[in-house]
Amino acid sequence: MVVNPIFTLAKTKYFSSKTLTIHTLLLIACLVGGLGASTVNAQNVILIIGDGMDDQQITAARNYLYGAQGKTILDTMPIRSAVQVLTVDNDDPTKAMYVADSANSATAMATGTTTSMGRISTSAHTDKDLITIIELAEDKGLKTGIVTTASITDATPAAFAAHVSVRGCETPERMVQYQSHGDYIIDCEQDTQAKGGLGSISEQLAVSNVDVFLGGGQRRFKVKAEGSEQTILEQAKDHNFHVIEKLEDAKHVKSIEKLMGLFAGKNLAVRLQGTDGRIAEQAEFSFLNWFHRYLGSVTLPDEMECEANPEFAKNNTPNLKDMTQVALNRLKNDKGFFLMVESASIDKQSHQRNPCGSIGEAEQLFETVQVALDFAKLNQDTLVLITADHGQAAQIIPHASMYNVYGVPVATPGAIARIKTPEGSIMGINYATNQFNYEEHTGVNVPLFANKNVIDKNGDTLIKSLIQQRDIFTISKVYLGL
Amino acid sequence: MVVNPIFTLAKTKYFSSKTLTIHTLLLIACLVGGLGASTVNAQNVILIIGDGMDDQQITAARNYLYGAQGKTILDTMPIRSAVQVLTVDNDDPTKAMYVADSANSATAMATGTTTSMGRISTSAHTDKDLITIIELAEDKGLKTGIVTTASITDATPAAFAAHVSVRGCETPERMVQYQSHGDYIIDCEQDTQAKGGLGSISEQLAVSNVDVFLGGGQRRFKVKAEGSEQTILEQAKDHNFHVIEKLEDAKHVKSIEKLMGLFAGKNLAVRLQGTDGRIAEQAEFSFLNWFHRYLGSVTLPDEMECEANPEFAKNNTPNLKDMTQVALNRLKNDKGFFLMVESASIDKQSHQRNPCGSIGEAEQLFETVQVALDFAKLNQDTLVLITADHGQAAQIIPHASMYNVYGVPVATPGAIARIKTPEGSIMGINYATNQFNYEEHTGVNVPLFANKNVIDKNGDTLIKSLIQQRDIFTISKVYLGL
Repeated sequence: MVVNPIFTLAKTKYFSSKTLTIHTLLLIACLVGGLGASTVNAQNVILIIGDGMDDQQITAARNYLYGAQGKTILDTMPIRSAVQVLTVDNDDPTKAMYVADSANSATAMATGTTTSMGRISTSAHTDKDLITIIELAEDKGLKTGIVTTASITDATPAAFAAHVSVRGCETPERMVQYQSHGDYIIDCEQDTQAKGGLGSISEQLAVSNVDVFLGGGQRRFKVKAEGSEQTILEQAKDHNFHVIEKLEDAKHVKSIEKLMGLFAGKNLAVRLQGTDGRIAEQAEFSFLNWFHRYLGSVTLPDEMECEANPEFAKNNTPNLKDMTQVALNRLKNDKGFFLMVESASIDKQSHQRNPCGSIGEAEQLFETVQVALDFAKLNQDTLVLITADHGQAAQIIPHASMYNVYGVPVATPGAIARIKTPEGSIMGINYATNQFNYEEHTGVNVPLFANKNVIDKNGDTLIKSLIQQRDIFTISKVYLGL
Repeated sequence: MVVNPIFTLAKTKYFSSKTLTIHTLLLIACLVGGLGASTVNAQNVILIIGDGMDDQQITAARNYLYGAQGKTILDTMPIRSAVQVLTVDNDDPTKAMYVADSANSATAMATGTTTSMGRISTSAHTDKDLITIIELAEDKGLKTGIVTTASITDATPAAFAAHVSVRGCETPERMVQYQSHGDYIIDCEQDTQAKGGLGSISEQLAVSNVDVFLGGGQRRFKVKAEGSEQTILEQAKDHNFHVIEKLEDAKHVKSIEKLMGLFAGKNLAVRLQGTDGRIAEQAEFSFLNWFHRYLGSVTLPDEMECEANPEFAKNNTPNLKDMTQVALNRLKNDKGFFLMVESASIDKQSHQRNPCGSIGEAEQLFETVQVALDFAKLNQDTLVLITADHGQAAQIIPHASMYNVYGVPVATPGAIARIKTPEGSIMGINYATNQFNYEEHTGVNVPLFANKNVIDKNGDTLIKSLIQQRDIFTISKVYLGL
């Protein structure tokens, strides 16, 4: 059992004992300073995932939004930990892989099991469905919610409420030998209903017991369900989902209904972009440089600023924090809830070498953390966890090489954005993991922040200095008493 | 004043009070679990700096040395924090720079003041000498030591005991208009003794009060001192330094002497290298790929393993942990000490795109942390801090692109090493911050680990979830009671 020491303290004469002043102060420092281990008659978990939000992304967003000496709301959280992101080989699950994708990393957080890349809450090699924290919570009568700036069928949200062997199997037409890009064939035939499976991701979400879905993905639901004349959206409505396409319509949704808000065809537009939509660009070496890298000169991309992305306003895109507030209002109940919130496009914009895009979506995450902490202040039995699912390509590097002093042309072989920050300096962001259309993920461990610690029935403090991604499942499960 | 709650507890009847069992357990969990704030009649600080040891470097070393699911000794430390690495523009110190070098970051840790790149404990723009933690400690009669795998005149060690405007001014002949590489001119004329300055770094170290120097740099001391027929080494001997060139000779050094161990001409050899000395290499794209990046094929560099670097044994290179043990044996005294230990070549090997080199030097750091923690166990008034000075270029990326499924040639535009790990997988390490001989630093915040927290006289817990690099000076100062 977990106990809340603040409450226990209040019930005793601890505070009135003058002889124990030092211990009291220390314990208060421990707890208020947040370094202490504390929990609760556990009720609510808000798990906030910044997709690809590694320390480079956090530092870049901090520099831009708050200045080099500034702090994000994450930096004020009492608990900081780091998370090992584990992945295994699908052919031989005893074999480690060192770089994850969002599917397998979300599966680890959702189910407590390490799996192979691309899998949505199914086991590596054996392809068994893995029970998720949301399913466990539902079984015990808790409410559940999923909020994301991506399509709700995207890998991270999907892994909390669906089971399929390949993340690309979002809709029925993509289930059997679907050619995605180039030579890339998606196949989840064994997951089709015809083969006794649960169907595509959107079909599974449409019949799920999740109380609140908010995000994008209209297109994934406006297609016919497998072997049916009904669209998946119609199936969702049949399963008591009240579907809205504007966040303000949430107020019309009855409390006995489930809420599915789909605010874009696919992913939601992002808040920020570079000047005139510019992203990171390649440096240009002069002709002479082709003969020897010490010869000639190099021209770096022009500086840019971050500006509002017109698509965001044009599409009446809801803010992540507002979606989260709507979800919290609906989920609050006597039995507790589990809510997963994802700022998805920190990653997607980094894949596309758009640092302003990532910064804006990190800002959305920071705002959402504030909403979660405000909720936790009023509803003290609330655990707020913030983490990333994997590392991303972007690196803060000198906006002009530190080797320029040598008088030879030096620049990244990848693409660099040189961003003028509001505090009047220039920040260089490098993207150079490949020369393809999309950058790679990286295998770095990622940060985790929490508003409090969790102690299990054996007295073990669960959020240690380093945890594994699958421990996030256990921490949530213990806190919720599942 | 700082107090040790464990000791205070032991002196009270706290443990015998049955009614307070829950609080006792919580406080013990807080403290023993290490999440609590605790200090001591402060005496000793061991500050261990992994140069360039950001989370990518730690994860890569962890994967290689202990496996993807393994833990380094850092991961078992009770306190994890992150550190903002601040740098300012020398021309306008109100202006932030987002990427540091080892000189300005070591200055921040040594003096509590943010400065500009290349500076050794001198202030940005105004070029004033900044008092270091080692100088403060000496003034109060504490012992002090500097241990590094670099030359002891290198930027990180230098910043703790010298003051000069440019890090390259290591020896007298480099002080005035010295052409270092290409167009790069070093000039510290105002620091020459002729101009009333303190002289070059090696000259300053030779006359310093530091009790123990261990590292490389013989060449920096075997040159003539400014305006003198004496070598700097002779000056050091005149200043009560017993100079050794083999670590085992430390046992012959009297306790009233100061110890200067110089075990290599410049930096110490590193422990590991890639197979046959290989480092990261460029992928080779086929001829067709010159016409369009979707065409042709790509050949990735062969896999490699990490093997012993023959130079390490050939030069009878001392291990960092053994140098640290020698330093600790000499520094232990009734008044306390400040010891800075640097594993310097995590950074230097990453600059050179040699991941095995960095991994071996991270391993040296981990071993050294064990020595420090063993010392702290026997000498409880010892604060052990481990951090990095700045981020480095290396990134763990998929050893073959995750976009290979699309059937087009994809690879890094930089250099990749594909390392076979002892657990039987392949780890890709990417270096792509520039196309020059040496990679850039990155601006990411870096981790900090501690064996305990420090509380100042106002009751403030000093190691928070995020600190600034200059706070490391304050933390050390408060702990030592300076």
